[in-house]
Amino acid sequence: MKITENTEKWRKVSYKSVKIHDPFWSNYRSMVRDEVIPYQWEAINDRVEGASPSHALQNYRIAAGEAEGAFYGYIFQDSDVTKWLEAVAYSLHADPNAELEKLADETIDLLGKAQQPDGYLNTYFTIQKQDQRWTNERDNHETYCAGHLIEAAVAYFETTGKRRLLDIACKLADHIDSVFGEEQGKLRGYPGHQEIELALMKLYSATGQERYLKLCQFFIDERGQEPHYFKLEAEKRAEKRGRESLLREGYYSLYKNNYEYNQAHLPVREQLVATGHAVRAVYMYTAMADLAGATNDTALLESCKRLWENVTQKQMYLTGGIGSNHDGEAFSFDYDLPSDTAYTETCASIGLIFWAQSMLHLEPDSKYADVIERALYNGTISGMGLDGKSFFYVNPLEVWPAACKRPDKRHVKPSRQKWFGCACCPPNLARLIASLGSYIYSQNEHTVYVHQYIGSETTLKVAGQNVSLSQQANFPWEETVDINVTPEREEAFTIAVRIPDWCDDAAIKVNGQAIAPDSLQFHKGYAAITRIWHTGDQIALKFPMAIKRLYAHPEVRANAGKVALQRGPVVYCLEEADNGAALSHISLPEQARLAAHFKPDLLGGIVVIEGQALRSELSDSSPRLYESRKRSEQSFTFRAIPYYAWANRGEGEMAVWVRES
Amino acid sequence: MKITENTEKWRKVSYKSVKIHDPFWSNYRSMVRDEVIPYQWEAINDRVEGASPSHALQNYRIAAGEAEGAFYGYIFQDSDVTKWLEAVAYSLHADPNAELEKLADETIDLLGKAQQPDGYLNTYFTIQKQDQRWTNERDNHETYCAGHLIEAAVAYFETTGKRRLLDIACKLADHIDSVFGEEQGKLRGYPGHQEIELALMKLYSATGQERYLKLCQFFIDERGQEPHYFKLEAEKRAEKRGRESLLREGYYSLYKNNYEYNQAHLPVREQLVATGHAVRAVYMYTAMADLAGATNDTALLESCKRLWENVTQKQMYLTGGIGSNHDGEAFSFDYDLPSDTAYTETCASIGLIFWAQSMLHLEPDSKYADVIERALYNGTISGMGLDGKSFFYVNPLEVWPAACKRPDKRHVKPSRQKWFGCACCPPNLARLIASLGSYIYSQNEHTVYVHQYIGSETTLKVAGQNVSLSQQANFPWEETVDINVTPEREEAFTIAVRIPDWCDDAAIKVNGQAIAPDSLQFHKGYAAITRIWHTGDQIALKFPMAIKRLYAHPEVRANAGKVALQRGPVVYCLEEADNGAALSHISLPEQARLAAHFKPDLLGGIVVIEGQALRSELSDSSPRLYESRKRSEQSFTFRAIPYYAWANRGEGEMAVWVRES
Repeated sequence: MKITENTEKWRKVSYKSVKIHDPFWSNYRSMVRDEVIPYQWEAINDRVEGASPSHALQNYRIAAGEAEGAFYGYIFQDSDVTKWLEAVAYSLHADPNAELEKLADETIDLLGKAQQPDGYLNTYFTIQKQDQRWTNERDNHETYCAGHLIEAAVAYFETTGKRRLLDIACKLADHIDSVFGEEQGKLRGYPGHQEIELALMKLYSATGQERYLKLCQFFIDERGQEPHYFKLEAEKRAEKRGRESLLREGYYSLYKNNYEYNQAHLPVREQLVATGHAVRAVYMYTAMADLAGATNDTALLESCKRLWENVTQKQMYLTGGIGSNHDGEAFSFDYDLPSDTAYTETCASIGLIFWAQSMLHLEPDSKYADVIERALYNGTISGMGLDGKSFFYVNPLEVWPAACKRPDKRHVKPSRQKWFGCACCPPNLARLIASLGSYIYSQNEHTVYVHQYIGSETTLKVAGQNVSLSQQANFPWEETVDINVTPEREEAFTIAVRIPDWCDDAAIKVNGQAIAPDSLQFHKGYAAITRIWHTGDQIALKFPMAIKRLYAHPEVRANAGKVALQRGPVVYCLEEADNGAALSHISLPEQARLAAHFKPDLLGGIVVIEGQALRSELSDSSPRLYESRKRSEQSFTFRAIPYYAWANRGEGEMAVWVRES
Repeated sequence: MKITENTEKWRKVSYKSVKIHDPFWSNYRSMVRDEVIPYQWEAINDRVEGASPSHALQNYRIAAGEAEGAFYGYIFQDSDVTKWLEAVAYSLHADPNAELEKLADETIDLLGKAQQPDGYLNTYFTIQKQDQRWTNERDNHETYCAGHLIEAAVAYFETTGKRRLLDIACKLADHIDSVFGEEQGKLRGYPGHQEIELALMKLYSATGQERYLKLCQFFIDERGQEPHYFKLEAEKRAEKRGRESLLREGYYSLYKNNYEYNQAHLPVREQLVATGHAVRAVYMYTAMADLAGATNDTALLESCKRLWENVTQKQMYLTGGIGSNHDGEAFSFDYDLPSDTAYTETCASIGLIFWAQSMLHLEPDSKYADVIERALYNGTISGMGLDGKSFFYVNPLEVWPAACKRPDKRHVKPSRQKWFGCACCPPNLARLIASLGSYIYSQNEHTVYVHQYIGSETTLKVAGQNVSLSQQANFPWEETVDINVTPEREEAFTIAVRIPDWCDDAAIKVNGQAIAPDSLQFHKGYAAITRIWHTGDQIALKFPMAIKRLYAHPEVRANAGKVALQRGPVVYCLEEADNGAALSHISLPEQARLAAHFKPDLLGGIVVIEGQALRSELSDSSPRLYESRKRSEQSFTFRAIPYYAWANRGEGEMAVWVRES
């Protein structure tokens, strides 16, 4: 069986080949460049007033012998530095900045000094637990931190061509390769927090060294096998460190015997539904897809596809958020998607994009690109305020601020936070947005796929020549997209454009003319235009953005009787700022006429949806808790705003799903 | 200011004066006698197969020197024995049983042997922590166990006239009085789990010894004062037991610095809203009301009234359940009443009845008796299966069994449990049901109040003579109640009957005739019939039980757009057994005709409510998680059953609040 229906491999198009000039995204990219990356630098240098110190760089200095002191922070504190480096790498491509590059180079030098002669690099263990290296993969995040270092190294190498960090990464990966594996004397372990697997695939891709692919494959294949490594490892620790220490560890180690949490309850090929910690899961699924593609492992690909259907058709919020359980930041069970207790970590949505991207490069099917689009315009950027300085870790679909003090909703924050003790989401958003160029196109020898409609320029090698594509778009607000095609010479090849899942009546013209039926084919959500392309050819796309009323599958009990609004790729919500409090008392008549308007001065410029809704009378003379009189309803003009833009006007209620009447 | 509007005190009518012959309640009382009390005896004797041992009686034997071994069980394990004794006491009155009384007497002897020479009686500390007596009131439940012993002692004395347990209780109470108080050398502490306060008021009532009232008053008044006793006590323990032991204790002691949990965050008179652990709260409010009545403390009574309004108008479920938070088994904030995560412990509803009863005896106002009725027919007996052998600790208003594995809903059980590790609810239900006779009437010199409509006989001293009342009722199913009045001689006095809050058109006749307006007065929910009563007079009451559609206050966001059904005092629910799964997809049209039918063979004989409802189409070919097509709705005949009777036909969904269309 072939992995794709085409014998050719689909090639990724690097962020390096794409220059973005999109009104919507350029703004986000500026925020990352001007706010997030500088703020994060201050944070890892312990210079943010009022914030508890990160100590992340100081840990490296101590490990490098340049400073005295003890380790401070989470066991995965190192990764705050490498995530910053990765975001810097992408950003430097779009916006060269000698000063920033100098800071990065100096930081990389420091990492090099902290690396041990055997290649090991993790400040927590180097500073204070030398003898406990590789004794607790389940909890210790050693490979997780290594993975983030490797990802940063590959990105920094790709942007700058500098090998210093890549060399550090290879030395570290080689060390890990000497520790883990099937061979006699090596540990048959695998990560407690998956991340290095996808990083190793990137390192393999950047270096061509097959041992990195093999190590990834070992980690993927070994996972969940019996006898269970995490159990064996725990038994070994008990011998070595005594019962008391193990007991103490018990308090800190969540889920220590719940291997579903780490997706290690079964071999990955036997996992039928997504379970456990959502970020761990999607990072692993990403690596599985990459590995399946690189090795033509069809069984592994089938696992990926099965898990994809489970996640996106049974466990995904309308916003592209995943992981509905706070406890364990985890997937729940099929169709269990409550709006108000949703965890839906920003990082999990970002990881879903990584996975979708890997799937898309195995097989161009618009279902993958549709999910990327859904997550991009909704559940990921909802994690960052419009000021670029405030963040959500948790992205619920319904908030009643007063209820956030309930013990079972304490994870839901009604207003964005400055930064986090566990600062994973802001830098993850930074790297996603800074690397956005890599999500727009993919290609093979004779076909260019246009997956996302984002204003940009690129030049790709197609049909043996350079073809320049210039895309003009104003998504998610405007319906039209123009793509100018400039081949070096007249030649036949295919440009396949995605028809978004939200669009019913897409119109495609080339040079102002409808396309001849024999040169247009529809396949898996793409319209493939095959013709001889000339310089100056223009594809004009129109994707009507009707306001859609969406309903959830009936098994989603939380949304019974409710409707959500979407226009184009944007999911909408009602906010207290526009509609008053007690949003649950608003209902949207099934026949209500809805209109979309662009409001340039509202929330950075957004399209709002307005119309007539009903609201129960709220204030009256009766304070009775229960009564047989039904309160009257009044018509009023409601306003819905894009979900991603909520919580930028002070604290208040928010709801994506609204009762329908 | 007077406590009541009448200079006379309202007198309780003891369960001893009332003989119950009510179809509905006699069945429950038989279950308590034939199932609960015998089962509980087996349990405390460690003879229940498959259940983890209780060890409760064995602890007493060890403390008494009659057996060897270590203490086993919860720190409050002793109270399982005294709760059994209390239930036995009430039951022996209704159903004398020499064998059972002998077991009780032998148990009481054992308790006497376990009591220490100074009066102290708590097996945990006697067996293994002699030196730690009275060092941690916040957590240790010493006064809680003493309270349950005192309550049992008063009940056993009242039923049997035997003083042995009462003497043990007095000796224990005297010991506690020597430990706690304002005087130099005594501890200025108070209970971490309130219970002894209401028990001391009963002991005061039974013995006339004012020192028990004073001790109760000290506990109530001292609570929440600064410097905070729980804090001082913790500091003292640290000195005595060292830092390590205090740290270890930290793991086991929930809420150790959250004094709201124990209602000790403020002096009780300054507490404006109900907060913290619900059972602790209502036990304390009960004692506060009793104390306010006994001491004419109008400020304390005002506190009780303020808290009453808060609980019943802002924090009570339609079923009479209270305590919406699982974490801490606690009150939440005003109007936060989610159906699916509700904790609503059976014991909390029982405690609410205790409190309402105390309020009612200070001032006859039907709002108190209405809440007693609501809790009796709904949120308390829902805690016991129709077999008398299976129990709910938690009484949610909506259950989706699959969701009970969610970490934030693990407290919700979809099917009744055999017994509990912490076995507080079954014996608490047993004592409530066995003492039901005390809730029907109260009186003063010239007036008899009829609070509950429960078939029964009583003879009361009114207007200087014995008046017999015979009540025939078949609540909650039938609308008519007859009360035959038999005075010794013709005399003028008043019989005041409660008009239930659910009844709009009550009809009252005496001897078949409407009553002359000048002999009927309405006051605070009671119709007071003042006339010269003759032997053979009959009051015929008719309380039409229309099916009521009830709506929650708009601030209760969880119930927006939803309706609940009630008929008479009974709250209804939909069950999967009658209506299929996915109950959230059912809606009840506003104009639907509803009909009530008695089904003698269903669930022990119940009135069901039936009518036409709508249900969204569930199964179809589309597996899509979100789509713009709205599924069609079909009409079907739904059936609602009494809430208390749910979960007696296997595991399935249940919902009290249903969408209205």
